[in-house]
Amino acid sequence: MKNITELFHIKYPIVQGGMIWCSGWELASAVSNAGGLGLIGAGSMHPEILEQHIRKCKKATSKPFGVNVPLLYPQTDEIMEIIVREGVKIVFTSAGNPKKYTTFLKEKGITVVHVTANKKFALKAQEAGVDAIVTEGFEAGGHNGFEETTTLILLQMLRDVIHIPIIAAGGIGSGAAMFAAMALGAAGVQIGSLFAASQESSAHEAFKQKIVAAGDGETYLSLKQLVPVRLLHNPFFEKVRQAELNGATKEELTQLLGKGRAKKGMFEGDIARGELEIGQVAGIIDDIKPVHQIISELIAGFSETAGEMNGFLL
Amino acid sequence: MKNITELFHIKYPIVQGGMIWCSGWELASAVSNAGGLGLIGAGSMHPEILEQHIRKCKKATSKPFGVNVPLLYPQTDEIMEIIVREGVKIVFTSAGNPKKYTTFLKEKGITVVHVTANKKFALKAQEAGVDAIVTEGFEAGGHNGFEETTTLILLQMLRDVIHIPIIAAGGIGSGAAMFAAMALGAAGVQIGSLFAASQESSAHEAFKQKIVAAGDGETYLSLKQLVPVRLLHNPFFEKVRQAELNGATKEELTQLLGKGRAKKGMFEGDIARGELEIGQVAGIIDDIKPVHQIISELIAGFSETAGEMNGFLL
Repeated sequence: MKNITELFHIKYPIVQGGMIWCSGWELASAVSNAGGLGLIGAGSMHPEILEQHIRKCKKATSKPFGVNVPLLYPQTDEIMEIIVREGVKIVFTSAGNPKKYTTFLKEKGITVVHVTANKKFALKAQEAGVDAIVTEGFEAGGHNGFEETTTLILLQMLRDVIHIPIIAAGGIGSGAAMFAAMALGAAGVQIGSLFAASQESSAHEAFKQKIVAAGDGETYLSLKQLVPVRLLHNPFFEKVRQAELNGATKEELTQLLGKGRAKKGMFEGDIARGELEIGQVAGIIDDIKPVHQIISELIAGFSETAGEMNGFLL
Repeated sequence: MKNITELFHIKYPIVQGGMIWCSGWELASAVSNAGGLGLIGAGSMHPEILEQHIRKCKKATSKPFGVNVPLLYPQTDEIMEIIVREGVKIVFTSAGNPKKYTTFLKEKGITVVHVTANKKFALKAQEAGVDAIVTEGFEAGGHNGFEETTTLILLQMLRDVIHIPIIAAGGIGSGAAMFAAMALGAAGVQIGSLFAASQESSAHEAFKQKIVAAGDGETYLSLKQLVPVRLLHNPFFEKVRQAELNGATKEELTQLLGKGRAKKGMFEGDIARGELEIGQVAGIIDDIKPVHQIISELIAGFSETAGEMNGFLL
């Protein structure tokens, strides 16, 4: 089994997903200090803000951490320069062509991981020479694939064609799920929602409380005509749904979405009018916990499951 | 761990999903003879046809088998009478209120399982006194839940609230997935797509070939305004998608669907104009195999995974 603990020099094969508006230096350093791999989510940061977060993270932890960079913003070159200059050793790229920066980053000695949500881009990322891929299933929060392929299917589909470590993301809400993903060939997991709702997350308290309150069937993959994104049910989501049912065009949906909706909801706490990105795991989160507790519960759950399955035969 | 092998008196904790147009006596008896639990799918059978299939199944196997009855047809009373009269010992009910027939069937000594796709109905089924539930995730073929909850999430969500055996369905396409589902607390698995594409399935050869040809992202949950159903991509599906994008009403979709579309596609082989119900597992099926081979590969994959995970610690 390929193990990401060696690749990243971490204790546990747990990566905290780099999320917009949730994962600043506080969350990333807490995860790294607890033995996982923390990621600063650059997607919601201007370059100078990212620089500050990297510097604070270095002060807050002596353990490895990384930065997640969605490859869809005009300042990506600038962001990569900051990452190199600040000596960040691990970069997760997402939402773009993995060929574009992989060689550049690897030449600087940086470990590169690309996030994908389907088989086609997983193969492309492998071909581009990344060190590992994250495979993100339909149940994951935030931006997602058009294929709607679930984590369980992705892992079965990729096992025989991907020869670098696969990090399973989407739907990992317990140590048992972590064990299941690794039984399916994953070398580790990336977890978003559990950490988005942690004490150290920079998400607004009102958003965290809404995650805790969410039950089964309260998140939906939405805005599929633009870029599919999993949102928590709220009045804004309902508006989008109605518009879609009425045959709204891409242009109308783009206008309805407007600018800054995720910030409004997730960071500023306008839970009615904001865009609230979270995974289906929201349905099983019932408390806002500190990161060290989340990680120790994951490890305990993993061990318990390993014990239950030990020697289990048909 | 609650085990369904004892509940059903079978060798392996593998249930073949009762599917329309695929699972007649030939498939059901083949699965039962190979050590799983075969189910005749009553959903596509008039009562007298079901009676013939039950009689043929009894001749073809001495092992336990069952019948899947979707509780949405007017002849359900008649179907239940046939089941009792023919001495069928196991009934899986779906798509309706589990309270309606559970007591009646259990009084006749029949083991009752209800198929659910969300937490709410799983709890209702447990309350209704069924012996086990099937929890069917978003990735499953055919009719599905409005919640779009995946198998991985459902299992994590139900583990602590369901005290009867949980049979995991949706996305189980390998022995590793079976092991993963059981690590997540399932007492067994229900498998549809793999068996729909088996040699003994009564699906039309052209449909089976189309399943084999399907890759990642070629099935979609469709017709959500009516009853969500996972379909293989084809010209009919494309028509539905276009109608939905144009804001089609329920009435327009009902008219577009018409009558007998599943039969046309799955049984008669009109793969362009028919409705082709199949799960995301279609993306990993690359051959039409006999049932005994499918089951022996599942068991071998399970054992291999169990071996890999044996003693695995973090």
